[in-house]
Amino acid sequence: MSLIVQKFGGTSVKDAERLRNVAGIVTDTYKKGNQVVVVVSAQGDTTDDLIEKAAELNERPSKREMDVLLSAGEQISMSLLAMAIEKMGFPVISLTGWQAGVQTTSKHGVAGIKKIDTERILAELDKKQIVIVAGFQGISKYDNITTLGRGGSDTSAVAIAAALKADLCQIYTDVDGVYTADPRIVKNARKLDEISFDEMLELATLGAQVLQNRSVEIAKKYNVNLEVLSSLTKAKGTKVVEVTKMEKMLIKGVTKDTSIARISVVGVADVPGIAFRIFDLLGKKDINVDIILQSIGREGTKDMTFTVSAADADYAAEALREGSELLKDKEILVDKNVAKVSIVGAGMETHSGVASRMFEALYDAGINIQMISTSEIKISVLIDKSEADRAVIAIHDKFDL
Amino acid sequence: MSLIVQKFGGTSVKDAERLRNVAGIVTDTYKKGNQVVVVVSAQGDTTDDLIEKAAELNERPSKREMDVLLSAGEQISMSLLAMAIEKMGFPVISLTGWQAGVQTTSKHGVAGIKKIDTERILAELDKKQIVIVAGFQGISKYDNITTLGRGGSDTSAVAIAAALKADLCQIYTDVDGVYTADPRIVKNARKLDEISFDEMLELATLGAQVLQNRSVEIAKKYNVNLEVLSSLTKAKGTKVVEVTKMEKMLIKGVTKDTSIARISVVGVADVPGIAFRIFDLLGKKDINVDIILQSIGREGTKDMTFTVSAADADYAAEALREGSELLKDKEILVDKNVAKVSIVGAGMETHSGVASRMFEALYDAGINIQMISTSEIKISVLIDKSEADRAVIAIHDKFDL
Repeated sequence: MSLIVQKFGGTSVKDAERLRNVAGIVTDTYKKGNQVVVVVSAQGDTTDDLIEKAAELNERPSKREMDVLLSAGEQISMSLLAMAIEKMGFPVISLTGWQAGVQTTSKHGVAGIKKIDTERILAELDKKQIVIVAGFQGISKYDNITTLGRGGSDTSAVAIAAALKADLCQIYTDVDGVYTADPRIVKNARKLDEISFDEMLELATLGAQVLQNRSVEIAKKYNVNLEVLSSLTKAKGTKVVEVTKMEKMLIKGVTKDTSIARISVVGVADVPGIAFRIFDLLGKKDINVDIILQSIGREGTKDMTFTVSAADADYAAEALREGSELLKDKEILVDKNVAKVSIVGAGMETHSGVASRMFEALYDAGINIQMISTSEIKISVLIDKSEADRAVIAIHDKFDL
Repeated sequence: MSLIVQKFGGTSVKDAERLRNVAGIVTDTYKKGNQVVVVVSAQGDTTDDLIEKAAELNERPSKREMDVLLSAGEQISMSLLAMAIEKMGFPVISLTGWQAGVQTTSKHGVAGIKKIDTERILAELDKKQIVIVAGFQGISKYDNITTLGRGGSDTSAVAIAAALKADLCQIYTDVDGVYTADPRIVKNARKLDEISFDEMLELATLGAQVLQNRSVEIAKKYNVNLEVLSSLTKAKGTKVVEVTKMEKMLIKGVTKDTSIARISVVGVADVPGIAFRIFDLLGKKDINVDIILQSIGREGTKDMTFTVSAADADYAAEALREGSELLKDKEILVDKNVAKVSIVGAGMETHSGVASRMFEALYDAGINIQMISTSEIKISVLIDKSEADRAVIAIHDKFDL
């Protein structure tokens, strides 16, 4: 007997037919003698519908009330899934975030899981129940409903698996695993049997949209046995493991992220402390900065260029203009017409020539590189947004993935 | 400064425009220096939509999961109303049933309120917040979400008003008060300025659909200052009070209830204990019986006839057939084609001739009476369903209401 956590995303539970399909997967696992905890997202477009309803009334609603509103989405999907499982004759109970003991920070909209009090889940498992838990949501110490931010159901599932010391955590999505590139862009993209936590982390961060990166961080920290697979096919998924088996393929995948923006602060004084001032201002506003480039300008000035998520771009520019006397009359340029294309693979650093092959692929395709950023296991370039797909294909071909 | 509880039903919050209207009423009350607790139902057809979604998956879902599902409805409406109030610049917070301390029995679908732990509501009022509470829902001692049954938001509002010792509890609906008859049927129906708890209780029980009867019972028990008024007009509503002022009008209203059924058990043995056996069987199935008529049959047998709600009728007949050896081969007739028409008014018993005037009105209209039931403040007759509206008009005219 194993304890298995299974997570199903919004498209997997979007209507009655899909819910019945998920009920089939869950009960098959239960029938084999396993204990099963299911984590669900809100149905298909529910979250978007609720956001639209809110926007009709208030374009800037408080994050607390937004959390109350959005958390109703999983409450609906989890009870419907429970009913589908009841219909098949199995014992089942659904639990909201607060009922399941998911304790979070008080940061509404982007709360972090602090602790999971597993008492209720364990009690229900002891009663031989299939336990369904609302993903994406929790409760703060002030008894307020919180949400973990978009895609947070992955994090819920992995955190619950870690807290329960589950034997396996399966993330069911609408793709059947992790690919060397987005199969919608690169026709000959290949599914990976295995990927390491670190590689997955870079892929998640870089916009592969398979797993939320916080979920991968938790999986790595608690060494959760993680698997990504499709709720619609019976195909083998991708296992996310501590260290992948030795294999000749160095590069695990190519990804693109088009929801970013480049901000340039032009002609700031070339004196110490400017970088600190800029990134301190942004940090205080909870704006994450990715690639940073500092160029020497002329006549004692320099340009600072960096990337942020597209959603944060205008807010970031405003924060800089208003936050500092040194910056307020400087030219601050925001360019949302950019994309970041990256290659990821552990051990990349010990293999020379990887970067140059990537750049060569882009050169051959006539694509101009605006910025470059590297880490131990990834190389990212910033390019024009309209060339992102071509870049992914060119790189994928060059490395023969 | 007064503490005022305001309850808004589903039609009052059905869309963005209505929510803004409600936000206006609430903030007007708050602006006058009052503390305001708002109780909301789910938006318009949300509950029906959710029931339909459930029915697609399971025609007999467990009541526990149904409560989880339906309670999402108020969570949506309360957060949207909070956002509309935020937009107008007022401090506001929404609380679910469990957050607001609404403790109920564990009887899912028809839970009763046991106690309201007002700590959280009072803390938020102390912070000068407008407090919105989800109606219709609560939490059992096992930390499960419960609902109070359809229309339960009235009960939530009155119970919260009682627990907070509120100065006033206003029930906003889509009618602007309590009328002498349904204005959709009787064109010259008149709005009452006042009605007593007992009269209101009879009206609520008899299908007037203005207030849920449990809410009136609680209001009577705790002497809650209750008012029924419209969220759409500025018209004065109807006050529900302990004892109405002396006034010459004896009869307060005429009502009809068409969602009932008549059940006849034909030719049972005329021996002691038969009535006990029948109503004990029904009581054990939680089926409420209303009017009862026992007629002497022939050759040592009798017929038992009684009314139940139409929804319970088939279930009741089945319970009788299966529940007793004495009844299983008896003819059990179910007639759903009936209506109950009633007149209500305190002091009726001390005025002779009221019943005969009612019967005269029906006789003049050529309407046949099947059964009669009386109490201190009401007289009900069972008639053919198709004649219900004509009966209400005839009686209303006869008493010149």
